[in-house]
Amino acid sequence: MKNSLGREIPEKIAGRVLRPFEGAFATTPTGRKAARPQKFIGPNENKVLHSIEEAIEATGLKSGMTVSFHHAFRNGDYLVNMVVDACARMGINDLRLFPTALFPVHEPVIDHIKSGVVTRIEGSMNGPIGAFVSQGGKLAQPGILRSHGGRWRAVEAGDVHIDVAFIAAAQADPYGNANGIYGKTPCGPISYSAIDAQYAEKTVVVTNDLAPYPAYPFEIQQGWTDYVVVVDEIGDPNSIASGTLQITRSPTRLKIARLAAAAVKASGCIVDGFSFQGGAGGISLAATKYVGEEMARAEIVGSFAIGGVTKYLVDILHKGLLRVILNGQAFDLAAIESMRHDQNHVLMDPGHYANYDSRGCSTYMLDAAFLGATEVDLDFNVNVNTHSDGQLLHGIGGHQEVAAGAKLTLITVPTLRGRLPVIVDSVTTVTTPGEVIDVIVTERGIAINPRREDLKERFVAAGLPVRELAEMKTEADRLTRPPRKPVFGDEVIALIEWRDGTVIDVVRRVEGWQ
Amino acid sequence: MKNSLGREIPEKIAGRVLRPFEGAFATTPTGRKAARPQKFIGPNENKVLHSIEEAIEATGLKSGMTVSFHHAFRNGDYLVNMVVDACARMGINDLRLFPTALFPVHEPVIDHIKSGVVTRIEGSMNGPIGAFVSQGGKLAQPGILRSHGGRWRAVEAGDVHIDVAFIAAAQADPYGNANGIYGKTPCGPISYSAIDAQYAEKTVVVTNDLAPYPAYPFEIQQGWTDYVVVVDEIGDPNSIASGTLQITRSPTRLKIARLAAAAVKASGCIVDGFSFQGGAGGISLAATKYVGEEMARAEIVGSFAIGGVTKYLVDILHKGLLRVILNGQAFDLAAIESMRHDQNHVLMDPGHYANYDSRGCSTYMLDAAFLGATEVDLDFNVNVNTHSDGQLLHGIGGHQEVAAGAKLTLITVPTLRGRLPVIVDSVTTVTTPGEVIDVIVTERGIAINPRREDLKERFVAAGLPVRELAEMKTEADRLTRPPRKPVFGDEVIALIEWRDGTVIDVVRRVEGWQ
Repeated sequence: MKNSLGREIPEKIAGRVLRPFEGAFATTPTGRKAARPQKFIGPNENKVLHSIEEAIEATGLKSGMTVSFHHAFRNGDYLVNMVVDACARMGINDLRLFPTALFPVHEPVIDHIKSGVVTRIEGSMNGPIGAFVSQGGKLAQPGILRSHGGRWRAVEAGDVHIDVAFIAAAQADPYGNANGIYGKTPCGPISYSAIDAQYAEKTVVVTNDLAPYPAYPFEIQQGWTDYVVVVDEIGDPNSIASGTLQITRSPTRLKIARLAAAAVKASGCIVDGFSFQGGAGGISLAATKYVGEEMARAEIVGSFAIGGVTKYLVDILHKGLLRVILNGQAFDLAAIESMRHDQNHVLMDPGHYANYDSRGCSTYMLDAAFLGATEVDLDFNVNVNTHSDGQLLHGIGGHQEVAAGAKLTLITVPTLRGRLPVIVDSVTTVTTPGEVIDVIVTERGIAINPRREDLKERFVAAGLPVRELAEMKTEADRLTRPPRKPVFGDEVIALIEWRDGTVIDVVRRVEGWQ
Repeated sequence: MKNSLGREIPEKIAGRVLRPFEGAFATTPTGRKAARPQKFIGPNENKVLHSIEEAIEATGLKSGMTVSFHHAFRNGDYLVNMVVDACARMGINDLRLFPTALFPVHEPVIDHIKSGVVTRIEGSMNGPIGAFVSQGGKLAQPGILRSHGGRWRAVEAGDVHIDVAFIAAAQADPYGNANGIYGKTPCGPISYSAIDAQYAEKTVVVTNDLAPYPAYPFEIQQGWTDYVVVVDEIGDPNSIASGTLQITRSPTRLKIARLAAAAVKASGCIVDGFSFQGGAGGISLAATKYVGEEMARAEIVGSFAIGGVTKYLVDILHKGLLRVILNGQAFDLAAIESMRHDQNHVLMDPGHYANYDSRGCSTYMLDAAFLGATEVDLDFNVNVNTHSDGQLLHGIGGHQEVAAGAKLTLITVPTLRGRLPVIVDSVTTVTTPGEVIDVIVTERGIAINPRREDLKERFVAAGLPVRELAEMKTEADRLTRPPRKPVFGDEVIALIEWRDGTVIDVVRRVEGWQ
């Protein structure tokens, strides 16, 4: 069957009937969420264990089960490998991994796929695991990629049943209250896992810093936590940031950031109460900084900003240009430090900021947001998951929720990356539909979605270089050699879910390149 | 049938099969909690309404439904009366009220019971409504009294289905994030209602202080809130405190408080990491102060204290004698002020501190706790609900959870109130079973539960007046005339639930007095 974007979607995969995407807000959830398991403990019981193996035994983790993780340690995470290795040693196989995201550090999982320890993955597969699966590495079922809010929704809706949630915590107390803000190796919010902790049959907090009771903030609560495992090391704090934290020095990219900030200004939303999403790519960091400068120049006070939070956003808060930062994800230590000290830097879980099945997300209150893309197409559809060579290399993050929510969503991209064109006729994979994208900002100009004709006059009046997307594409195409095109097989290796649980696209195996 | 305390319990009431109490930790919950309703909103929808009537229409509230409330405004609350009055005006009747607690300010509800607008009440009935029901005022079904944690549990377990939750908020934003800490008339934590907000078919936040988005802390979350009603006044801040905030000046009661603090000290728990529950009765306030003095003298730092929080507990925090206050209920403005400024004064919802159906409560981590009683008996059973005249006049609060959790639970009571004896052969109503009471402290001495023989030696060594309960009873009885005894009818007017959902006792109608 075809979804409303014309993408071909299988009717069923692994016995599961798929719902095709029909529009950004086409689904109206009704009925009830899934029911959470009852839990119990009497007084004076000890939850503390001293190895992953003990936790695997205590939770009754067996072959065929689903284990979940968060990605707050990003490319510094040790826990996924620790758990999967321990399962392998203990003869447990056929696992479904349900991480928020896997990173290059999790490359050892590939061997566990080959040996049948891991047979299914639902979660982002950044880098090598995505490439492995794209190129023929066999999972028993296609992967499922979900946005931050979409994953929260899926657990609540009962789409995914978690047997054991393993939650890396920078700090935890012996009763299972846990957070990512304090401790020896702080990683920022870990409340991605708050929904796992509530829905999993068993919840295991794993920490390298066991603090006296009570450890707070209560990102993970004692009432949800079955066991607390104390280990020596839980992650490499130097790799948490994933190298995303330098403002770009590329003149082209700085130009894009400047144009993006100018577009926000021209749209008229930089007034008291202004709200925006920062983001952590090189262009986004620069745009965040420039928007802060526009706020200062306009002498306004914004209402709130959301991240990935970095020191650039914290600076804007500290200058008094912003009332509140809502933090669902911290990308540097300055952001974490600010969470400890600034009362108006507030923890927010993905349910709060992004859950489609709720009475409202923080992203719906955003005036403006900057987002990236690997590709954009002439229908304004955006791809952040695959590259033009067809390989699945990135997750969705909060892209869908921010784009769907913000009144002004700007995609900031160069028209060329190396010799690869970024503007294409039709994106390899649709992550986010054109209907929720307002503006695409490149170094060659600003393209306005025809749905937002209202912006055109403002941008032109402000002297901004408003251009047609097709025109910029033609210009860029002249400077590039035709990219090597993937030859896809029939086999679907991953589903890309829209945040409401429908399938917006699929990723097929790459059999070779033209 | 009889429960394990020998109290006669009906097998069924209003079609509901009752489970008899069998012990403080006899129930092991299994299976799943109730499922929460799905909720949805698109961007750019407005939740703000301007009257209770509009909210009643918008939520579809009809005759026969259940409406819920919290009691953070205590005897200053306006909301219950506003909603019930509006329902009466709109021809809605047969309502079940599901408040955490009703207070004397809610006396107008009596007229609504008489006229059939209100036919059932599940919640504490402090004062006039309890007396009215005790003396023959007709509800269609017996009331059900639950502890803070028991009420949370009941909602999660599906024992009570809420149609519309009305949540008084000292501050809310237009999207439904709400708290009791800020605003024009702060009342302290409102997170009693967090579970209502998640389980109710419709959730209505009512505030007299609509703040710009985002209002925080997120005690009530936007994702749970259907409507935000803005009204001129929501409660009388001068009546929030309920007059519980003066340290007693009675020499007898000060003596009890001093003995209680000395007993805590003698038990050996005032060492680094000490934790205790404060409480807000006149004796408890004094005992809290004295325990603080013992902590200072011992030069220790306690781990945490829970409340009802008052300035006496905040003083101990500010002196550095305590690492953390966990606040589920604030009894004075000093406590609320501290929550705004002290990062180690942490909000805690009743699920966190008291829910039986969870992997652990904060009360289970308490070393010592001071609690009151209307009566105690020779089996150490405690009554806080009825008076010796049989009338239902008080709620349970957190009594059951604190007593069940603390390693050392002290009941602090005078042996006489006026000419009424407090120590009786058998309490009129069992609220909390003797098995979880360790010590009863009166002005005549300290009685130790036979289960806690280990304490005896320590107390005697410390020179404390250890005595038999029966002995103190005999002494006191000599000074009193026999109290007027109630003549009970057969009709059960209220069930007293133990925190696990079993019935620990029933309250029968008072037909007269001997």
